Amino acid sequence: MIIDAHGHFTTAPPQLAAWRERQAAAAGDPGNAPDPSGPRISDDDLREAVGSNQLRLMDERGTDLTVFSPRASFMAHHVGDFAVSSVWARICNDLVHRVSALFPERFAMGAMLPQSPGVDPASCLPELRRAVEELGAVSVNLNPDPSGGHWSAPPLTDRSWYPLYEALVEYDVPAMVHVSTSCNPAFHTTGAHYLNADTTAFMQLLQGNLFADFPTLRLVVPHGGGAVPYHWGRFRGLAQALGGPTPEELVGTNVFFDTCVYHQPGIDLLASVVPSGGVLFASEMIGAVRGVDPLTGHHFDDTRRYVDATDRLTDAQRAAVYADNALRVHPRLAARLAAAGR
Amino acid sequence: MIIDAHGHFTTAPPQLAAWRERQAAAAGDPGNAPDPSGPRISDDDLREAVGSNQLRLMDERGTDLTVFSPRASFMAHHVGDFAVSSVWARICNDLVHRVSALFPERFAMGAMLPQSPGVDPASCLPELRRAVEELGAVSVNLNPDPSGGHWSAPPLTDRSWYPLYEALVEYDVPAMVHVSTSCNPAFHTTGAHYLNADTTAFMQLLQGNLFADFPTLRLVVPHGGGAVPYHWGRFRGLAQALGGPTPEELVGTNVFFDTCVYHQPGIDLLASVVPSGGVLFASEMIGAVRGVDPLTGHHFDDTRRYVDATDRLTDAQRAAVYADNALRVHPRLAARLAAAGR
Repeated sequence: MIIDAHGHFTTAPPQLAAWRERQAAAAGDPGNAPDPSGPRISDDDLREAVGSNQLRLMDERGTDLTVFSPRASFMAHHVGDFAVSSVWARICNDLVHRVSALFPERFAMGAMLPQSPGVDPASCLPELRRAVEELGAVSVNLNPDPSGGHWSAPPLTDRSWYPLYEALVEYDVPAMVHVSTSCNPAFHTTGAHYLNADTTAFMQLLQGNLFADFPTLRLVVPHGGGAVPYHWGRFRGLAQALGGPTPEELVGTNVFFDTCVYHQPGIDLLASVVPSGGVLFASEMIGAVRGVDPLTGHHFDDTRRYVDATDRLTDAQRAAVYADNALRVHPRLAARLAAAGR
Repeated sequence: MIIDAHGHFTTAPPQLAAWRERQAAAAGDPGNAPDPSGPRISDDDLREAVGSNQLRLMDERGTDLTVFSPRASFMAHHVGDFAVSSVWARICNDLVHRVSALFPERFAMGAMLPQSPGVDPASCLPELRRAVEELGAVSVNLNPDPSGGHWSAPPLTDRSWYPLYEALVEYDVPAMVHVSTSCNPAFHTTGAHYLNADTTAFMQLLQGNLFADFPTLRLVVPHGGGAVPYHWGRFRGLAQALGGPTPEELVGTNVFFDTCVYHQPGIDLLASVVPSGGVLFASEMIGAVRGVDPLTGHHFDDTRRYVDATDRLTDAQRAAVYADNALRVHPRLAARLAAAGR
C-alpha cells in the first residue's frame, strides 16, 4: 500500500474561490458577507474536480490513498478576523470531508483550523473537535504563522498552543505544521515561506522541550523538513550546544518529515540522513510545482519515482516510508483501513 | 591555495561588546552614547583575538586566507537608527581592516554596511566607499532584512537597493547576502533566520530579473544556499513556471553558494547538484556551530574535511571550489594576491 501523507484540495470548483473573494471583500463589512453556508458545489462537481486531477495522477503513479486537506495557500488565516476564518474553515473542511466520503478508499480527510492572527489558538478547538468527531479527520494542519509572513505568533513551544496539543493527544491525531499564503512581499509563498516555516518550526522544537509535556504528540514537518536534512549537521551541532532534545531523538518519534522534495539527490539525502522511521511518503500533488522536469521527462512532484529509485532505503524501509510510518502517525487512518479489511 | 570565503570576527576583544551595550542602551538617548571613536583595542589585543582562535584553526585545517568581516549577529541593524548603525559599522569595519592589515597574508576584509530598518539603502554608500577605497574591503555583507526577523524591507530586486548594486559593480566587489540577529522570537538566529534568509533571497532573485540590469553583479548566498540545493528540483520547477532566470543560469554567474554545510551528505548534495563553478569554500569558523561531532570526532564546521572527502568533485573542480571561484568572485582579492606574487 502507498499512502500520500500530504495532499491539498487545490482543484476545488471555481465557486469556492469566488465565494472566498466575496468573503474577503466583506471582511470589514459583515453585512455584505456571502451566504455563510458556502458556495453550492454538487457531488458531481467534486467527483469531476478530483477525478480529472488528483485521482487520475494517483492512478498513474500508483498511490492508493491520500491524506487530503483544504488548499494550504487558501487557508489565508490573515484574512479578516476569527469569525471570517471560522466560517471559511468550516466550508473548506466540509468539502474535503465530502471528497473523502465520495472516495473513501482513496482519500482520508485532513482538516484546517480557523486560526486568526493574535487570536488564542484554543478558539480553534470547536472546529478541531467537529472535524475529528463528525467529519472523520485523521490529521490537522496547524499554521505556525497565521499572520501570513509576519511571524507574529509565539513559537510552537509556547503554552498558548497547548490546548490544541491536548486535543490532538486526546484524539491521537497528528498535526502537519503548514503555513499558508505569504502576504509579505519578501517571501514567495511556495519557494520561500513554506520552506522557511518548516525550518523555523523544527528549530523551535529544538529550542524547547515540548514533547516532555506531550510525549505522544506527533507533528509532521512537510516539504522534506525544509532545510533541516540538508543542514542536519548544523542542527545536530546546535542541539548539542542547546542541551535540549536532539534531532535524532525527535525525528521518528514526535516529528516526521515528508518526501515533498522534487529531485532525486534531495530524496537520496533525506533517506540517507534522517532515520527512515521519520519519513512519510508524500507529493503535495497537485501543488506548488506542476511542471515536467525536462531533465527526466516526468513531473517534478512525482516523488514516487525518487523514492522507488533511491538506493539509500532497504525494501523494508521503503515500505515503511510508503505506508507503515503513515499508519503509525495516523492511527485513525489505520483503524479505518483495518475496519475495511485493508 | 585554500580561501575561506566566509569568516566573521566573532572573537573580538570584550571591549567591543561592552561598548556596543552602552551604545544600544543610549540608542534613544544620544547624550549618553559612548565615545564614537569606539573602544580602545590594541594591536596586541587583535593579534591575540585572532591568533588564538581563527588563525590557529586555519593553520590546523590548512586554510590559507579568510575573507573576514564583522560578526554577523552583532551587526544588529535593528538597534537604534541610522546614526547608531553608522557609528557601529565604522568601528566594526575599522577593526576587521586592522586585522587584515596585521595579517595581510591570512585575512582579506569584508565590510558591513550601516543599514537601518526603513532607511534608504543608498544611505550606506559613504561607508561602502570608505570600506572599499580606504580600508581595502574585497567584499560587503548586505542584510536583506535590517529589521532582524520582521522582514519589512522590500525584496532584493527592488530598485531601492540599486544604488548599492551600482557601487558594487563600479568597484567589482561582491556582496554576501547575510542577515543578523533575529529579534523575532519565532526565529532562532543561526538555526532558522540565517537559513531562511538564504532561501528567501535566492527565491527573490528567481522572481525578478535583477541581473539583466546588473549583469556583472555577484551575490554570495551563504550557508550552502539555505534550503535551495536540497530543494533544487522545486526551485527549477518554480523558475520554469515563473519564466524568469533559472537556477542553473544564476548560480556560477551571478549567484554563488558557500560550503557552510556541516556534514558530509550535505556537502555531497551541494557538490552533486550545484554547478561547481558556483560554489565557494567556506566554514564560517568560528561561528554558529562550535562543537565537535561525536560521530566523526571533528568539529562540525571543519568543512574542509567534507570538501576533501566528497567524491562528487573532480580534482579540478575541488581546486575551483577552494580558490579559483573565490578569486573570480573577489577580483580585488585576486589583484592583491597577484601583486604579492601569490
